[in-house]
Amino acid sequence: MARDYAIGIDLGGTNIKGGVCDADGRLHCKDSIATEAEGGADHVIRRIADLIARLIDQAELSTENVAGVGIGAPGPMSHSQGIVYGAPNLPGWVNIPLKARLQELTGLPTTLENDANAAAYGEFVGGAGSSVQTLVMLTLGTGIGGGIVLDGQLWRGAFDNAAEVGHIIVVPGGRPCPCGQRGCYERYASANAVAERLIEAVRDGEQSRLVTNADAEQSLDARAVLAARNDGDALAARIWDETCYYLALGIVALQHVINPELVVLAGGLINAGEDLLAVTQRHFDELRWKIAPDEPRLALAELGTDAGAVGAAMLAHASA
Amino acid sequence: MARDYAIGIDLGGTNIKGGVCDADGRLHCKDSIATEAEGGADHVIRRIADLIARLIDQAELSTENVAGVGIGAPGPMSHSQGIVYGAPNLPGWVNIPLKARLQELTGLPTTLENDANAAAYGEFVGGAGSSVQTLVMLTLGTGIGGGIVLDGQLWRGAFDNAAEVGHIIVVPGGRPCPCGQRGCYERYASANAVAERLIEAVRDGEQSRLVTNADAEQSLDARAVLAARNDGDALAARIWDETCYYLALGIVALQHVINPELVVLAGGLINAGEDLLAVTQRHFDELRWKIAPDEPRLALAELGTDAGAVGAAMLAHASA
Repeated sequence: MARDYAIGIDLGGTNIKGGVCDADGRLHCKDSIATEAEGGADHVIRRIADLIARLIDQAELSTENVAGVGIGAPGPMSHSQGIVYGAPNLPGWVNIPLKARLQELTGLPTTLENDANAAAYGEFVGGAGSSVQTLVMLTLGTGIGGGIVLDGQLWRGAFDNAAEVGHIIVVPGGRPCPCGQRGCYERYASANAVAERLIEAVRDGEQSRLVTNADAEQSLDARAVLAARNDGDALAARIWDETCYYLALGIVALQHVINPELVVLAGGLINAGEDLLAVTQRHFDELRWKIAPDEPRLALAELGTDAGAVGAAMLAHASA
Repeated sequence: MARDYAIGIDLGGTNIKGGVCDADGRLHCKDSIATEAEGGADHVIRRIADLIARLIDQAELSTENVAGVGIGAPGPMSHSQGIVYGAPNLPGWVNIPLKARLQELTGLPTTLENDANAAAYGEFVGGAGSSVQTLVMLTLGTGIGGGIVLDGQLWRGAFDNAAEVGHIIVVPGGRPCPCGQRGCYERYASANAVAERLIEAVRDGEQSRLVTNADAEQSLDARAVLAARNDGDALAARIWDETCYYLALGIVALQHVINPELVVLAGGLINAGEDLLAVTQRHFDELRWKIAPDEPRLALAELGTDAGAVGAAMLAHASA
């Protein structure tokens, strides 16, 4: 048994997920542990190394059978230098040489990747994108993460910062974004934006059964907005429809810049299934040009929360 | 003397420009002839072949010294199949196998490219982008054409239709575009849009010394708007500033999707020089995020109207 396996790690603020993949992208085993981010960077890095050791055990491998480790982490970061510059959900992470530290602890070659890129690569290898060569993935969660695969290769950009699609400006002078810009895509079409925009509309005097007091504001999420929409709440219906409209608006930009075969929608918002996909497709068909038959297919991600670990493992295979 | 030279052709609705380049991108001679587009596709293709023969003579070469011909043509088209599907400025051009026809007439291997892509590649090889590996070029003319070079390679997209950046939607529900969409980038930041938006503002009741009757409307262009702006016309000043604002807005999208080192501005509008570059840079600095030092440098194109022929020739070298 040669070095036929790679380990993929998906580092999040709450959990660290990991998996063992063969060279075809098949996941042989997976596991996860709490991040314990409050323990600081050294503590978290030791926990990642522990999870890697545990995965090697569970798959009944030895380090001799492992081609390498891929780790998807929140950014900003430098892929080439293996450094995490900072991460909002990981307190104390400032310029952490994650790649070098993990290599020391595990003895395995390690590749560091932006978590959204890793997830896009996972869907490309073994999920919704496995039949195409060029795709864009949009991860609709707290914000909108992105990943771009061109002719089978991840496109990282000149500054390792490509596919930050959540910060395309879709509404000039629009809603402020923590990034410092106004009108960012993720302020209109992420899961969080669904709830935020409904709350803003109520504060502006519109009515919804969903928001009647401050407690209701606090606990509101996209799932509740969708449920109310499907149960006849007019404001929830308008907000949901607008969300899909703005989502489609960004996809038009990606169609014309990247010209991908496929746009994969991922992240928490896709729990809405066809309520998201069909409405977004309808808006996309209305918004986009018809003068060239070059529109990408839209599809929901298929790997769920495994995408990051699978993609990271496959990037380790690719760089081995 | 081996096949050290390639011929580049830039096919426009009015003129056909051509040049002979060595493998380093140096232009050894150039020439141009009228397109005579009204003569139809066969006539124009013969004229292209005549120009190629004339360039070979002028450079004192024989076909044995020529690695190939590159031709930049208006689209939509298929690079891989060598077919021009249609071109608004070339009447009667429908599904024309331009590559095959030219190969028959000249006996030289020919590569067909979108004209904006060819010009971007020209600036990459021998112009404003010669010190970078990744750039986006925006050609600000009748519309906004684009070209994207990633790690030294032209990115054509899954349907040969990437870098149609003029049709990013920058204003949701905004000005109608002949492409069928609304709010396209080129309806706000092209040379034509400068004059159109000033005329619209006057029709909406604003005052400008530029537009006093229908004749004045007819002849208005971006150059006149800039002259009036620099001479104190308040409406012209506002329209010019808004043009640079919208231009910067699209560059923010390209920064976050492509993450290039450089954005090259080209086309008729760059005759404005610093009046365009400095104002656009100021808006870009106001609009873009500051959380990562990943902003592209902005620069004006350097090859002028030679860019298309130089780029086409270098693409012929690259595919030889």
